[in-house]
Amino acid sequence: MIAEILSIGDELLIGQVVNTNQAYIAEHLNRVGISVAHMTTVGDDRGSILAAFRLAWERSDVLTVTGGLGPTHDDITREAVCAFFGRRLVLHQQTLDHVRALLAQRNVTPLKRNEDQALVPEGCTVIPNPIGTAPGYLFEDAGKVMFVMPGVPYEMNAMMEATVIPSLAAKGSGYVVRHRTLKTTGIAESILAERIGDINALLRNDEGLTLAFLPSPRGVRLRVTARRRSSADADALISRVDEEIRARAGKYIYGVDDEEIEEVVGRLLTERGLTIAVAESCTGGLIADRLTDVPGSSAYVERGFVTYSNSSKVEELGLDPRLIADHGAVSRPVAEAMALGARERAKTDIGISTTGIAGPAGGSEAKPVGLVWIGYSDSRETFAIEFRFAEGRRRVKERASQAVLEIVRRRLLGAEQQFSAAGKQTGTP
Amino acid sequence: MIAEILSIGDELLIGQVVNTNQAYIAEHLNRVGISVAHMTTVGDDRGSILAAFRLAWERSDVLTVTGGLGPTHDDITREAVCAFFGRRLVLHQQTLDHVRALLAQRNVTPLKRNEDQALVPEGCTVIPNPIGTAPGYLFEDAGKVMFVMPGVPYEMNAMMEATVIPSLAAKGSGYVVRHRTLKTTGIAESILAERIGDINALLRNDEGLTLAFLPSPRGVRLRVTARRRSSADADALISRVDEEIRARAGKYIYGVDDEEIEEVVGRLLTERGLTIAVAESCTGGLIADRLTDVPGSSAYVERGFVTYSNSSKVEELGLDPRLIADHGAVSRPVAEAMALGARERAKTDIGISTTGIAGPAGGSEAKPVGLVWIGYSDSRETFAIEFRFAEGRRRVKERASQAVLEIVRRRLLGAEQQFSAAGKQTGTP
Repeated sequence: MIAEILSIGDELLIGQVVNTNQAYIAEHLNRVGISVAHMTTVGDDRGSILAAFRLAWERSDVLTVTGGLGPTHDDITREAVCAFFGRRLVLHQQTLDHVRALLAQRNVTPLKRNEDQALVPEGCTVIPNPIGTAPGYLFEDAGKVMFVMPGVPYEMNAMMEATVIPSLAAKGSGYVVRHRTLKTTGIAESILAERIGDINALLRNDEGLTLAFLPSPRGVRLRVTARRRSSADADALISRVDEEIRARAGKYIYGVDDEEIEEVVGRLLTERGLTIAVAESCTGGLIADRLTDVPGSSAYVERGFVTYSNSSKVEELGLDPRLIADHGAVSRPVAEAMALGARERAKTDIGISTTGIAGPAGGSEAKPVGLVWIGYSDSRETFAIEFRFAEGRRRVKERASQAVLEIVRRRLLGAEQQFSAAGKQTGTP
Repeated sequence: MIAEILSIGDELLIGQVVNTNQAYIAEHLNRVGISVAHMTTVGDDRGSILAAFRLAWERSDVLTVTGGLGPTHDDITREAVCAFFGRRLVLHQQTLDHVRALLAQRNVTPLKRNEDQALVPEGCTVIPNPIGTAPGYLFEDAGKVMFVMPGVPYEMNAMMEATVIPSLAAKGSGYVVRHRTLKTTGIAESILAERIGDINALLRNDEGLTLAFLPSPRGVRLRVTARRRSSADADALISRVDEEIRARAGKYIYGVDDEEIEEVVGRLLTERGLTIAVAESCTGGLIADRLTDVPGSSAYVERGFVTYSNSSKVEELGLDPRLIADHGAVSRPVAEAMALGARERAKTDIGISTTGIAGPAGGSEAKPVGLVWIGYSDSRETFAIEFRFAEGRRRVKERASQAVLEIVRRRLLGAEQQFSAAGKQTGTP
C-alpha cells in the first residue's frame, strides 16, 4: 500500500509554521509497513484542496489529510471533503456530548462555534479526538482509505495512535520495511563515508537494502533500511549491516533511532549510580535543559549553574578571580575551574562546563565567535578541550551541548573511547 | 508568479527528519511577492523525481528543489536534473577551486568524492555555496525558472540569501503581499475568536485581506495578510486591522512576527536597565536557555540556578528546609522563596522561579502531572501563581517557560497588565 500525506493550511505556504505533522505521520505509517510516496501541502483554498484530493486519490491507496478543521472561519477542509465525496453535514451526538464534557472540564461554556464541530459529513466514520473538540473523519471506497484529522499536532497524534494506526496495521501490505538509524557525532560526513568505504559491497548489491547519510548540527546519522517479506529477515539484514558499520566507525556512534545523547548519558549515569552537575556560560542552560528532558533525570542531575556573569563564576563556582583576569573568561583554566567548581559545590561525581563566544558580537582575532572551551571533572581528572564551531548563536549552543555530552559518554565508557585531553578538536563541518 | 517547493529525500518520507526547508523557502519567496501554491516531497527515486519535475514545471512559474546533492551514493538529484533537461556533466573550475580552498581551511585533504562536486549540468548557471562543497544550479526556460540547492539547511539558507532571493526580487509580480502576525499567549483560541468577534466585519469583506488563527504550545498567533498593488496600501490595511484587534485583545499580544517573548522581555529589561536571575526546577534550564538565545542577553541575564534536588534549593537559594518539609517542593511557598532567593543571591532586580511536576511519573491526585507553581520577585513584591498544563514532559516545560516570561513581560509593562497574584490560572487548552 502506497500512502500520501496531505497538509492543508496557508500558514504552511507562507512559511510561518514548520510542518512537523508530515514527519510524524510518515514515521507511524512506515512502522506498520506502509510506504509514503508523496507529501503535499496546499493552502486553505477550495480549488487547491479538491485538486489535491483528486491527484492523491488517483495515485495512492492511503491518504491522510490534516488541517483546517478548527472552529474559526478559515477552516474549510470539512466543506471540501463534503464536496469531494458528495456528502452533507449531519449532527454526531457522541461528538456533541464530548465537546460539552471537555469544555465543562475546563470550566468553559460551549459557544455555538464549539458545538458546530459535532456536525460531520454524512456516512463517514468519526475518528474521536480524545483531547480536543474537532473530530476526524474516515472514508473508505474501492479499497482506498482517507483519514481527515485536525492539524493541531497533539490532537492529531492522539487520534493517530488511538484509531488510525491500529486500523491500518490490521490491513497489512505483504512487505515489512524496517529501519535502523545509527547516530554519530564528532565526525564529518565525508570522513565517515571514507571510513565506511564501498557502499555496494557493504549492502552486497541487495535491492532490499539501503544506507543513507543524514547530516545535522548534532551529528551525522546513518540510516539502514531493509525490505523483506518477514520481519525476522529484515531485522537480520539490518543487524548484519549494523555490525559491519560498527566495526568501521563504532566509536562515533552514540545511539540508535530516536535516542538522543542525553538519554544515553542518563542511562550510563543511572547504571553506574553517578551524579552530575553542570556549569554553563555560553550554552546558557541548554545542557541542563537537555539532560532534564529525560524522564527520571532527577536521579542523577543534581543541579546546574548558568554562570553568565563573571561574578557568578566566582561566587557560585568558587573561581579565583585572577584566573579570569589573567586568561579571560573563555579559556582553558576557566573551563577547568568551572567544571571542578560545579562538581565540588554540588558534591556530585562529575562536573562539566562550557565557556565560549556564541556571537554574533564579542569575537576577536584570537578568540573568534564559535570558540568554546569545554571542561570536564571527576575524582580522577579535570581537563578542558577547545572547540571551534561554525557561526550562528543557536548553532554554537547546540554543537557545544552535543560535544559536552559526547565527552561525558566517552568518559563513562572508559579509556579507549576518550578524547585526548591534550588534543585540540574542531567542530564537524 | 506562482511557486512550488520540491523537497527530495527518503529521510523525509520515512519521517526521520522534519522538513524545515519548505517553511524557510516559502517565507523568503513570500517576502518578494511570490506566492507558494504547492509544497511537495518525494524520495531519492529517479522516477518519482522526474514525475514531480514534470508536474511542477507544468503548473508553476518558479520551482525550488532541495536535497540529494551531497557527496554520498544516495544523492541522485544532479543526475535527475541532467535527465530532465537533457544535459551532461561538465567541470566547473571555480567550484573546484572553492572546494579545495574550503577543505584546506578545515585542514582536510580533498577526496575524489569532494572534488566530484565540481561537475555540474552543462549550461546551467552555478549558484555558489559559500559554506559548503555542493554548488546549486539555476535553469531558465520559457519564462520559468528552477533553482536546485543542497538540502543541508545552513547551506541552502546561505544560497537563498546570496543568490536566489535577489534574482527573484528583480523579476517582480505586480502584486505585493504583506503579512503581520500578532502573537498572543495565555488565552484559548475559541475565547480569542469570541473577543475578536465578526471576522467579515473586521476585514470589511475585502478579498485582499485575510485573518488566520494559528494555535501552538507557546500561544495562539493571529496572522493578517493583505494583497495590494502597492506596499504602502498593503501596509496601511494591515495597520488598520492590527489596531482593531489590539483594541479587542491587546493585553494578550506580546509580540509581532518572528519576535519571541524572550526577545520582548530582553528589550524591556534593557530599556529599563534591569537585571534578572532564574531559579528553575521543573523547567530544568529551559528558561535560561531561551533568555540567553537573545544576542546581548549577557547585559541582563546575571545568572541562573537549575535547582533540581531539594538540597540545591536550600544551598543555592537559601530556602528554609522546613518550607519543603511542610508544603512539598511543588508549592506556593517554595516557588516564592526560590524567586526571592535567586534575586537576593544574584543581587538582581528580578527573580523568577518554577517548581512543578513535568511527568510522566511523580504525580498524585492532589499534585497531578502538569501542576506548576511559578514565582516572581522584585523589590516591591514576591508572589507565586499556580498553573495546570496538559501532560507531556516537554510540553509542560515549554508552557511553563512561556508563562514565566509572560508574567515578567506584564509586570514590566505596569499594573494594569498584571496577573492577579491571588488568581489561579489554568493553561490554555
